[in-house]
Amino acid sequence: MKEEKRVKAITSQNDDFAQWYTDVVKEAKLCDYSSVKGCLNYLPNGYALWENIQKDLDKRFKDTGVENVYLPVLIPESLMEKEGDHIEGFAPEVAWVTHGGIERLEERFCIRPTSETLFCDHWQKTVKSYRDLPKVWNQWNSVLRWEKTTRPFLRSREFLWQEGHTLHATAEEARERTHMMLDVYYDFVTEDLAIPLIKGRKTESEKFAGAEETYTIESMMKDGKALQSGTSHYFGHGFADAFDIKYLDKNNKLHCAYETSWGLSTRIIGALIMVHGDDSGLVLPPRIAPTQAMIIPIAQHKDGVLEKADEIYKTLKEAGIRVKVDDSDKTPGYKFAEQEVLGIPVRIELGPKDIEAGEVIIVRRDNHEKINIKFEELTKKLPEIFEAIQKDMYNRAQEFLNSHLDSATTMDEMTEKFKTNRGFIKAMWCGDETCEGEIKYETGGAGSRCIPFNSENLSDKCIYCGKPAKHMVIWGKSY
Amino acid sequence: MKEEKRVKAITSQNDDFAQWYTDVVKEAKLCDYSSVKGCLNYLPNGYALWENIQKDLDKRFKDTGVENVYLPVLIPESLMEKEGDHIEGFAPEVAWVTHGGIERLEERFCIRPTSETLFCDHWQKTVKSYRDLPKVWNQWNSVLRWEKTTRPFLRSREFLWQEGHTLHATAEEARERTHMMLDVYYDFVTEDLAIPLIKGRKTESEKFAGAEETYTIESMMKDGKALQSGTSHYFGHGFADAFDIKYLDKNNKLHCAYETSWGLSTRIIGALIMVHGDDSGLVLPPRIAPTQAMIIPIAQHKDGVLEKADEIYKTLKEAGIRVKVDDSDKTPGYKFAEQEVLGIPVRIELGPKDIEAGEVIIVRRDNHEKINIKFEELTKKLPEIFEAIQKDMYNRAQEFLNSHLDSATTMDEMTEKFKTNRGFIKAMWCGDETCEGEIKYETGGAGSRCIPFNSENLSDKCIYCGKPAKHMVIWGKSY
Repeated sequence: MKEEKRVKAITSQNDDFAQWYTDVVKEAKLCDYSSVKGCLNYLPNGYALWENIQKDLDKRFKDTGVENVYLPVLIPESLMEKEGDHIEGFAPEVAWVTHGGIERLEERFCIRPTSETLFCDHWQKTVKSYRDLPKVWNQWNSVLRWEKTTRPFLRSREFLWQEGHTLHATAEEARERTHMMLDVYYDFVTEDLAIPLIKGRKTESEKFAGAEETYTIESMMKDGKALQSGTSHYFGHGFADAFDIKYLDKNNKLHCAYETSWGLSTRIIGALIMVHGDDSGLVLPPRIAPTQAMIIPIAQHKDGVLEKADEIYKTLKEAGIRVKVDDSDKTPGYKFAEQEVLGIPVRIELGPKDIEAGEVIIVRRDNHEKINIKFEELTKKLPEIFEAIQKDMYNRAQEFLNSHLDSATTMDEMTEKFKTNRGFIKAMWCGDETCEGEIKYETGGAGSRCIPFNSENLSDKCIYCGKPAKHMVIWGKSY
Repeated sequence: MKEEKRVKAITSQNDDFAQWYTDVVKEAKLCDYSSVKGCLNYLPNGYALWENIQKDLDKRFKDTGVENVYLPVLIPESLMEKEGDHIEGFAPEVAWVTHGGIERLEERFCIRPTSETLFCDHWQKTVKSYRDLPKVWNQWNSVLRWEKTTRPFLRSREFLWQEGHTLHATAEEARERTHMMLDVYYDFVTEDLAIPLIKGRKTESEKFAGAEETYTIESMMKDGKALQSGTSHYFGHGFADAFDIKYLDKNNKLHCAYETSWGLSTRIIGALIMVHGDDSGLVLPPRIAPTQAMIIPIAQHKDGVLEKADEIYKTLKEAGIRVKVDDSDKTPGYKFAEQEVLGIPVRIELGPKDIEAGEVIIVRRDNHEKINIKFEELTKKLPEIFEAIQKDMYNRAQEFLNSHLDSATTMDEMTEKFKTNRGFIKAMWCGDETCEGEIKYETGGAGSRCIPFNSENLSDKCIYCGKPAKHMVIWGKSY
């Protein structure tokens, strides 16, 4: 019993959500801090999640014509400085390399915080004509930002992500790509991660450094806070001009080029934990779970139990299901608890009585439902159960989001609601950055998450200053 | 015709092998140099090769129980210094980070040249008992080594690779893993890349910094030079002791732990180019080729040609073949030349006459053989042709290696042979590092490639000093 207690050493969400998060990350062995302050070790259980995210998302990218590349980890200071807004945004948080081997470098290099400048530099040298366009490139890599405070997956100095960069002949085509990639993120996160989203545009103050427009998908954690889950930026020709990227059209006329970039990072694993997890640990959607089913033999010392478990394992594996058997010498109760901490979508219980009855007991991780299934129906029924879990998880999260998305038309109403309830609040805004800042201050930190594509006209006036409203904004505290 | 000439702007191998290599890398658009001196941009055609290498090799790793992780890009100087041989080997070629944002760091970090120290540091903190062993981990990442001279894929400051690191309870188990991973490399490179190899052990002077034993797979380029294609290291308990990694056995007794590491990098793309390439460009083995077949319509303006090309494209794609159609407005001749430069294993020619005859013409890249195939037989015959190409390419490379692997029993014979022939020479050696160095000097740079597992007793004496021979060594110039 001591062992069983140990794996259940997870603080309750209601007692302390932040501690619950830290406990889950630790107990599920997803990652830990390395000896490099603020940098993570992504351990097998955590990295396997990222590998599945990569696999699914990369396929979606390639279906839209994306090609993968890899550009250097270092950026010369002179390149980094070419676009003014960009360096201003990133300068305080980059790490600088000053020595190579024993020699001091003539020019400093920073470790990439993002790679717009390297892509621009390459395109400046290689793109000459309309025939060279478009470029629709992406890289899976890590970036480094010298953050002061860090939290596993949510904010660390080095993190894993993908950064897509594209170059186009026209503004129209670049805008189309910006929205296309936001849609790819939306479909991936809602379909594969079962996380409901709000799609929208960032306000001026929340834009990416150097972008003309930034679009975002925002998700809501179980504590009511927002997590920016992916962004897609339209640059216009700002970067291209700063780097002097020009192309000749069919009539030999010189034109400026248009760019986009878009990224999704290991932060999304934080969302996966905080949208679906419960007091027993992780709850993983079947489509992304590294292990979808754990077979747990009961009374495994008895004749035929392990043999049958192995037979079922082989049958399911052949059917393309990601399955494991826990035939270790731990007690079944301990194994159940462990499978729950890890968020494995179903466990398959199999004991002598079940074998006699020619069936197994499936226990769903998400709602603890028990389902008896005959051996011969397992390969047919299990995928159906996975799809049911996937759908139910999405629906529960969508219901949570809906019931924690309120609106307000006065500041009193808004501050009161933020004081008493978790979640987001919709309110009208004049477009002025001062009002945006004041709203955040008065609500104790609820910033503008986005101007959602699905907008309503709640009132004609800005909730703060009373001047004519320009946008409906989703306000919320965030990670 | 001018266009056709341009894509054929590749120096002949016999005229200048080094220039031929540079030309192929450039014309096939595999990579180019970035603005960061000595660092490459891996472009879509080059990175797609690496992606296929990753996919195939990663599956082989996982079949042996390897789990993937990701550890930081930075290593604190104090960690890097813990194992004496290791820091001595790497100190001259690491890049140092001294500033984070605007602040000067209290301790310098180097950008990882390899990650043994980080894995050891993590295991020192987390491995306590025999239950925590073995650890069989791997990461796909980039490393940085401040090289003076660089060449695309063969030697660059930053390169992509995988580094596997394992920790075991016994020396025996660690040794077994060292050899297992060398075998995984051997099988992958010979089967998927069609590159024949010599397997063996490195001499003391060629070992990895900190290893007790280093094993290698060596391949031979068409200029007769060797390329070290993958290495697997047995560390004994040297690293574990330096980092104080100990575990308790079942009887609560403390033991030291044993380690291995093993790596294969983007250098292997250099081997792929130089083992198979010819004067027209790349020649890719079908199993690793990003595009296996290029459909080239002839007289594509004529009724039904593009439609039929598209129909065949869809049929082949559904059958799991990596196929493309070149329906651009270039001439067929230009398209042929381009497909040859890129090394695409077969082109599929399809014109009005072929459509009438109900067939296509397949042209093999490797031997220019033309094969007529009926439409309805294409999905059956094409995979057979791929397998034939794969086998023929391997056999041709094996014949080349055999016919360029000679032996010698006197220094006169050896220096003469190295003067007049390309290739490797087998000769006996006493085991003394001085002799090893002198042999390299007198042969104008032929170092010891390895002590092959398949050894012969060519003579009882060291070819240099005449003292009793301990090993047969393969000698050769190398990349």
